[in-house]
This record gives sequence, C-alpha cells and structure tokens, in this order.
Amino acid sequence: MTETKTLSLAEIEDLSFRALVAAGTSEANARPLAVATAATEADGVASHGLAYIPIYAEHVQCGKVDGQAIPALARPRPGVVAVDAATGFAHSAIDLGFEALIPAARAQGVAVLAIRNSYNCGVLGYHTARLARAGLVGLGFTNAPASIAPSGGARPVVGTNPFSVAVQGEDGEPELLIDQSASTIAKSEVMKHAREGKEIPLGWALDADGNPTTDPDAGLKGSMAPSGGYKGVGVALLTEIMAAALTGATLGINASPFSGTAGGPPKTGQMFIAIDPVATSNDSFRSGMVGIVEAVRAQTGAHLPGDGRRGKRLKARTDGVAVSVATLNRIQALLG
Amino acid sequence: MTETKTLSLAEIEDLSFRALVAAGTSEANARPLAVATAATEADGVASHGLAYIPIYAEHVQCGKVDGQAIPALARPRPGVVAVDAATGFAHSAIDLGFEALIPAARAQGVAVLAIRNSYNCGVLGYHTARLARAGLVGLGFTNAPASIAPSGGARPVVGTNPFSVAVQGEDGEPELLIDQSASTIAKSEVMKHAREGKEIPLGWALDADGNPTTDPDAGLKGSMAPSGGYKGVGVALLTEIMAAALTGATLGINASPFSGTAGGPPKTGQMFIAIDPVATSNDSFRSGMVGIVEAVRAQTGAHLPGDGRRGKRLKARTDGVAVSVATLNRIQALLG
Repeated sequence: MTETKTLSLAEIEDLSFRALVAAGTSEANARPLAVATAATEADGVASHGLAYIPIYAEHVQCGKVDGQAIPALARPRPGVVAVDAATGFAHSAIDLGFEALIPAARAQGVAVLAIRNSYNCGVLGYHTARLARAGLVGLGFTNAPASIAPSGGARPVVGTNPFSVAVQGEDGEPELLIDQSASTIAKSEVMKHAREGKEIPLGWALDADGNPTTDPDAGLKGSMAPSGGYKGVGVALLTEIMAAALTGATLGINASPFSGTAGGPPKTGQMFIAIDPVATSNDSFRSGMVGIVEAVRAQTGAHLPGDGRRGKRLKARTDGVAVSVATLNRIQALLG
Repeated sequence: MTETKTLSLAEIEDLSFRALVAAGTSEANARPLAVATAATEADGVASHGLAYIPIYAEHVQCGKVDGQAIPALARPRPGVVAVDAATGFAHSAIDLGFEALIPAARAQGVAVLAIRNSYNCGVLGYHTARLARAGLVGLGFTNAPASIAPSGGARPVVGTNPFSVAVQGEDGEPELLIDQSASTIAKSEVMKHAREGKEIPLGWALDADGNPTTDPDAGLKGSMAPSGGYKGVGVALLTEIMAAALTGATLGINASPFSGTAGGPPKTGQMFIAIDPVATSNDSFRSGMVGIVEAVRAQTGAHLPGDGRRGKRLKARTDGVAVSVATLNRIQALLG
C-alpha cells in the first residue's frame, strides 16, 4: 500500500514549478512543465506526473536538458511553424509553437508544428488535447531512442513512442483522445520487471537475435515487440518519419537515452498537425463525430480511447489528486 | 495452377480503359482508373488490379457508382482542397484534387485534400506514392463500411480500411511505402474462407457477441479482429476521423457495402495530407531518411514496408505482368 496525500491541481503545479526552478530551470521554462505535470496527475497518468519532477531536475543539473534554453521560432511557409527547442524542455518549445500554430491552422485550414533539438515531451496526448480545446483536430508524433527492430531484423531502428489524435466534444474537452505507442507494452514495464527480477510474458520483448524472450534483461538488450507484428513496425516508422526525419530532429538510432544522466541532450523531435474541421468538412464534422461516438456509447461496455483519462480529469478538478508521499518527499528534498 | 498471359503495362491500361468505357464510364473517369489498374498490377496487388474491372463495370451499370460523374473542387482555405466526387469513381476525384493539392503543399508547406461522396479508392498506397513522386511526404486515409467493433463492444463502428504514408527515394520512386489496414487480416480473406467452406484461424474475426470464432460466416456476421487489440481500434478510429468525419463523407456505420450491387453509392471519403519536407526539416529530411533506411538495409533479412511492391514495379516496367486468363476472359466479355 503506497502512502498518499491529496493535493489540489494548483498545489501540484506550484510544487512542480518551485522544484524545477530550484534545480536551475528558468521560470519561463518551468511554468509550462508545471502546468503539464498537474494536468498529467489529473488524468491519472502518475508515471509521467510528479514522479518525473526529480528526473527533470537531475537532467537540468547534468546538462541532459538546458533549463535556461530559449526556444527559437521560424515561419518558413504560411502553414509551417518550426521551433528549435535549443536542447531545452519540449513543453516551452511546444507552447511557443502552439501560439503560432493555432491561428495558422485556422487561417490556412491546416498547419504543422515541427520541433527539433527537443526532449521527452511527457504525455503526448496532453499536447494534442490542447489543440482539440482550440477546436482543431490535433495529430501528434514524438520520437524516442530506438527500441523496435524492423520486420525481418533484430536491431532496433525506431522508437516505441506514440502517436496521438484528439477531438473536441460539446463541453469543450476532448471527447476522443488516442495516445498509443507502437509496442505491445511500454518499455518501462520491462525495466520494472528487470529491477524486480521477474520474468516477462512472451510477446513483450525480443532478445538480441530477434527471438521472443521471457528474460527482461535479454529483452532490454534486444528490442521491444511491435504491437500487431509488422503493422506495429509501420506505426513506429510513421512516427519516426513525422517526428524526426520531417522535423530535422535526431533519429532514434542516434539519440541519447531519455533515462539516466549519460549522453547529453537527446535532441529528439515532435510534430503536430492541426486541422480546422470546419474548413475540410463543409461544416459537417460535428455531426460525423456525434455519429461515431453515439455508435460506441450505444453498446454496453464499449468505450472510446481517452474515456478513462477524461473521467479522472473532471473529478480531479474538484477533488484534487492523491499523490505518493514518497514522491512528495523526493520533491521536497529538491527544495532544500 | 492459374493459367496466365503476360501483358505489358500499356496493354493492361488500354484493356481496362476500353472495358470501363464500354460499361458506361466517361473517358475522363475511365483513364485515371485504367492507369491505376496497370500500376496496381505492376505492384503485384492482383486482387485490386484487373480482377476489379468487372466489379467496377457492374457498379457503373447498377448505379453504385456514377460513371459519368463530374467531380467538383472547392478551395475553402489556402491549405485545403475539397472535392465532391459526386458519387463517381474516387480516382478522377483524387486526380482533380492532386492538381491543386501538390502546388498548395509546396506553397503553404502543408495542404490537405478532403474528398466526400466518393467510392472505394482501390490501393491507397498508389495515391500516396504519387505524392511521394512529387517530392512530398504523403499521408492517406480512406474509410469503408464498418467492420471493427470498439473496445469492450461487439458491433462494428469503424472500417478495416488503411492508412498509408509514402516517402520518395533518390531514384524518384517511393523508397518507403506503408499501406496497412487496422485489422489482423483483410476481410476478403474471411470471405474467401466462407466461400470455400474452410475454418478461419482464431484471431481473425469475432462473432456477433464479440467472441473469437473459427467460423467465417459467424465472423462476417460479427466483426473483424483489430490488429494488436485496442491499438488496432485506435488506428481504425484515426482513419474514420480523418477520412469520414473530417471530409464530411458518409460514416462507415452508414455506408452501403463496397461489394455487391445493393444499397446505392457508398459515398465514403478520402483524406490526404501532403507535407513539403524541405519546409519542415530545414532541408535535412533526406539525411534523416537515409539514416533510417540504411539502419534497416544494414541488417540481413530486414526489410522496409513497400519493398515487395517496389521490386515488382521496377521489373514489371520492362517485363510486363502475368495476368489470369480467366480474368482476361471476363473483361473481354464486357467488350462484347
């Protein structure tokens, strides 16, 4: 049983902000990351919430991310926003980019945001949800160090990192939020089994020769199994093309690890595509989405991607979130 | 052993063109479909090549597709091309749309083509490959009658139809071409087993209660199994949102079947996103793609999506394609 304490979202944001600044992050870079941390806790994705604050702090201190970075924006074409994150946090680069992306998508009907020299962006769906709240259909892609092998091969070429798409509902919140990786299971689950000395189920990972394995250490030296076989590889390749090749970011095969302190900045990338549904659908987008959503809601037990996070989010706004006291103690230690 | 005869690509195109016109298709609508039929045979996708000509002819004659349709183009925003296919063939609507989409993507950096009131577009990767040959990164989505159930449900809401992405290589041809459906296996395979009275493997389809089945008829009354479980549902939902909700096309739950003569025009949709990689990547896209491709080519036995079609395509240009004599006889019968 983990000991917990209930904090309001404002308290989570404030605590995150102060810890990041204490670690050497500029206020301008700490704020969007603190806001995202509170939102991620609200969504119930504790693995990417407060638990990440000590890791972010360590990465500022070791130079894996530049806490003082000032991201730079360019507009090479009317529909393209390009941001060089300058090896800083992804969140402030995305914030800067969205300020230009959202009006560009409304004016052009579609626009893209290409971010390079970036870092782990946390929960990708957090960002696409923001595009949905602006009334746009947001697609997102983020790359990561390689951990999935190509079909017929055994050495990793593409990451497990996700794609995401979010669509706004009648209440302004995302009514459908897809945020899924290309692997059968998150790599962090294999790492957890390795730490705990437990076997992993067949189908989670492959050894260095490309054979299925139940040994988590062999899996970590090999590759993650793609979801649905070659079709998972296809989704991972799509993500790598969008988030790395198309943004000019570092490829997964060349990126330093997201975990630990070695290797310097990963310089990975993010790509967002924002589409104005009014422009493309002759204003019939809402009725189409209502048709899809109602066909799911009419079936007992059926659910849409994002239902779980949505329910937790609405509850957390009034009730706050129960967070691990051990995590809170680690963060308090950062504040000295 | 199927009896075959080798035809040049020009002969395949000419035969397709004459058969479509004989069935009542206008020359303007028959030409792009005939060109695509030859290219599809060249790629070795015989199921969607000449074998489809008698089906297209039947659909013109029964009114499921309007052979004389004149697609209409609109430009609601600088980055949006919208085409109403007017219940005609998808191919001429896409041709019309690409004439505007390609220059728009170059000028804006990104542009989308939204097609509604459309029909089965054949092999989706044929169309994205054309965007790749224009130096753009082409993403494509096409919707279809519903055959995949949502997670936790049993009644189909989304189709198995694919997404596709294509990227140009040094020789001008696509060097990577992803074209994959969201189901474990193509629905046509389940239909083939039903016709032949054979059991299907577990994992291909679910019965009307959502349980795995080996009975192809029960599977056809139920739903197709999504590739990788809920992640396949996510890909299918992405496709339905892009190709139907965002284009204003008919949803998969409401679309008439693509096969048979009943139900009138399906009025489904297609969406293409074309991105100019020079604009988004600060001109580093080629080096990124070279890195991804070389990391795959360096592994014995590893391959990229599209390798198979690419090899066949290059060979077919000089050697022609061996096509089924039975299919040729069916097409000759259309010519009277």
